[in-house]
Amino acid sequence: MSASDPPASGPLTEPAHTAAAVLSTGDEIMLGQLQDTNARWLSERLAQAGVPVVAHMAVGDDLARLTAALRGLVGQAPLVIMTGGLGPTDGDLTRAALAALQGEPLIEDPAALEALRARLAARGRALSDRNRRQATRPVSAACLHNAHGTAPGLRLRAGPGLAEVFALPGPPGELRPMFLAHVEPALRPAVRGGLATTLLHLAGVPESDAAERIADLTARGGESVVNITASGGVLTVRIRSASALGPGAARAEAERLAALARQRLAPYVFGADAETLQGVLVRRLAQAGQRLAVAESCTAGLLGATIASVPGASAVLDGGWITYSNGLKVAQLGVPEATLAQHGAVSVQTAAQMAAGALARCAATHALAVTGIAGPDGGTPDKPVGTVCIAHAQRTSGGAEVVSRRLLIAGDRQDVRERACRAAMSALEMHLREERSPGVLWQIGPATREFQPFL
Amino acid sequence: MSASDPPASGPLTEPAHTAAAVLSTGDEIMLGQLQDTNARWLSERLAQAGVPVVAHMAVGDDLARLTAALRGLVGQAPLVIMTGGLGPTDGDLTRAALAALQGEPLIEDPAALEALRARLAARGRALSDRNRRQATRPVSAACLHNAHGTAPGLRLRAGPGLAEVFALPGPPGELRPMFLAHVEPALRPAVRGGLATTLLHLAGVPESDAAERIADLTARGGESVVNITASGGVLTVRIRSASALGPGAARAEAERLAALARQRLAPYVFGADAETLQGVLVRRLAQAGQRLAVAESCTAGLLGATIASVPGASAVLDGGWITYSNGLKVAQLGVPEATLAQHGAVSVQTAAQMAAGALARCAATHALAVTGIAGPDGGTPDKPVGTVCIAHAQRTSGGAEVVSRRLLIAGDRQDVRERACRAAMSALEMHLREERSPGVLWQIGPATREFQPFL
Repeated sequence: MSASDPPASGPLTEPAHTAAAVLSTGDEIMLGQLQDTNARWLSERLAQAGVPVVAHMAVGDDLARLTAALRGLVGQAPLVIMTGGLGPTDGDLTRAALAALQGEPLIEDPAALEALRARLAARGRALSDRNRRQATRPVSAACLHNAHGTAPGLRLRAGPGLAEVFALPGPPGELRPMFLAHVEPALRPAVRGGLATTLLHLAGVPESDAAERIADLTARGGESVVNITASGGVLTVRIRSASALGPGAARAEAERLAALARQRLAPYVFGADAETLQGVLVRRLAQAGQRLAVAESCTAGLLGATIASVPGASAVLDGGWITYSNGLKVAQLGVPEATLAQHGAVSVQTAAQMAAGALARCAATHALAVTGIAGPDGGTPDKPVGTVCIAHAQRTSGGAEVVSRRLLIAGDRQDVRERACRAAMSALEMHLREERSPGVLWQIGPATREFQPFL
Repeated sequence: MSASDPPASGPLTEPAHTAAAVLSTGDEIMLGQLQDTNARWLSERLAQAGVPVVAHMAVGDDLARLTAALRGLVGQAPLVIMTGGLGPTDGDLTRAALAALQGEPLIEDPAALEALRARLAARGRALSDRNRRQATRPVSAACLHNAHGTAPGLRLRAGPGLAEVFALPGPPGELRPMFLAHVEPALRPAVRGGLATTLLHLAGVPESDAAERIADLTARGGESVVNITASGGVLTVRIRSASALGPGAARAEAERLAALARQRLAPYVFGADAETLQGVLVRRLAQAGQRLAVAESCTAGLLGATIASVPGASAVLDGGWITYSNGLKVAQLGVPEATLAQHGAVSVQTAAQMAAGALARCAATHALAVTGIAGPDGGTPDKPVGTVCIAHAQRTSGGAEVVSRRLLIAGDRQDVRERACRAAMSALEMHLREERSPGVLWQIGPATREFQPFL
């Protein structure tokens, strides 16, 4: 076994991970300069895997406190996940704290050192003494490969009950793939699979209405829990079923509840589990063999970027226009000066012209346009901050069928821009699902439908 | 003294709040369903007031664990702020845990009960037995008035060192005003106000190199702490100075350290404190009276959206083109078919043509172009996932001066896209700052400089 191999997995009788604790380190957390999002993410993943998290703890970059916190937690839970403190600076003390906990020296791990050297060389950089620290580990620890950064993780057993300790880097872009690669496969939940979770995602309905429709399902008590959370216009119904009868029974119960909720909440349900609105939109477009273009003013590219965040989006996304200035709306999308003068840049008329203009300039089937007032300035009594007009154009013989809508969106500048993108995607997703009746999120008044000829 | 009065303040010799701990409670935090933002907010306020936070802890709605966590923290810090668990449900256990910690019964507080009754009556609601629980307190505790909700806070002294414990409700809209009203005025910082914090933000230098340049400043020990954190290619140097001589001396020391760090780390420093790369870019463009356009392939609008996230960006952002497909690169930006055929869509040549093409089609002074392979598919041995080419074009007589660079960016699809935007913004920001020498983030090889005529 090379020094970097993980410890061989134990026998099947190895004690289960009946509880887990998460320990974060960083002065920036203690100073309130950084929101620790890792503890939340890890807790969600661990809960989904059937390992209950019983404590979060965070301490600053202080060797004595970090070591004491570790010593306390390995006595409380058979699994401890540490985050942060694996960088190359003097403030990175996780390696030293683990060595102190174990009463062991730090040694250089040859395989980790070689991986670090290769990573730096690929970027034309030499290995400094400071970098070298990142390839050290307590004698009894194994290094865990980090494909996205220079800091390897560490895995060891500590404390009287030989709790399993994983130390992962703090940046979420490194922590998350390392958790999925190294920690999740090593989890030993106490109730093997007797737990099932299902999520349903909805758009276009207020939270209180959705809650009313499934009030009987969300009542407390029993082995299943159903609740609703809202985030920027998308509602998520979370169904969590446990069963002593095993994973099959828990799964069946979760599916029964999900089917009931779907029935009550159609036509608002656009996806389930890990699906996102943009992911469902890309999938539906790909299934229909259709392509999309965007024409964006206040969102300035956020709609295109959100759709392109889906792997494989190039199969359905042509691209688009960011017409932030009125000059570009006219020059690049052919919005008539008269439309801007008469109705303003934020109007259903301008949105409709932007969408039709985009379609006339590319080969896509659909175009989505967004124009609005994201704030904090620019609002008027007639068109307050949060006023957004969206349009969906679909190619037809000689022109485009355009549906445009006026919305009033609550929130700050970022909220308005993000929610405008969700509303535009929701409009097209419902259209592709052939749900014509419900309005989109934050819609005011009826939709305008018209034919725009291509000139 | 009525039961609701806070304890009389002690003599001036009462021990200072040399350290504080924050304890949050809630099953939703342990399940990862809720991001605990209170700990961050409280830490920021406490640090600003000169009381250093040394630990965060969060546990679920479990009486034994909550009591044990409290017992541990009152032994570690002379000030403990608890949040959550003061509601009327069976899962709200903070009152019971404090009673268990003190070995005291819970009694009804007449003044708190009256305030609760009045609050409910004002909303046309009667006082239920369940509500009544919220007016109970351990014998030795005082109730703290909550102007924004039904749950009074609690204040008591506990543990061998008589640590001061404040229990506040979990909803931020109740917690924050209660902290400001009841906790902040009661703080006894060890160094009254003698604390100052400064941040410097850097781009274009690896963390280990930056750490090396200020190694003497980041060494442990002394009253000031200097550390470096990294997030998606932007480094932040955090300087925190304390001084027994008072706030002026602490501020002067923080500024002295910041000036030293700036001197060592120029030309990478682009901003300080609350500044962001996009914010600084918008400010510099506005100061120069110049405008910007973008031409985006793999980022598909993210660069434009990031710049437009800055309030007032419309003063400098014209807009741009999302040329995700090669067809749009040719039709909308005039990228020659031959360039695409010979060098590929991801090449410094294509990036340069995109930037020059954007500038030729609008009135902006600068254009930034991005084209790359964000993954997870599409990589080749020659151009692996993470290969991104960026170009900056500046309008000049009859055409554009274009500087293009090839980068290799680590991370997943989102990381590559976000970092590509940072690199492009960093290239322009350094140009505007007249820093010509350093490379941008993740750059491989030298930059290509050329003149592109407008045809």
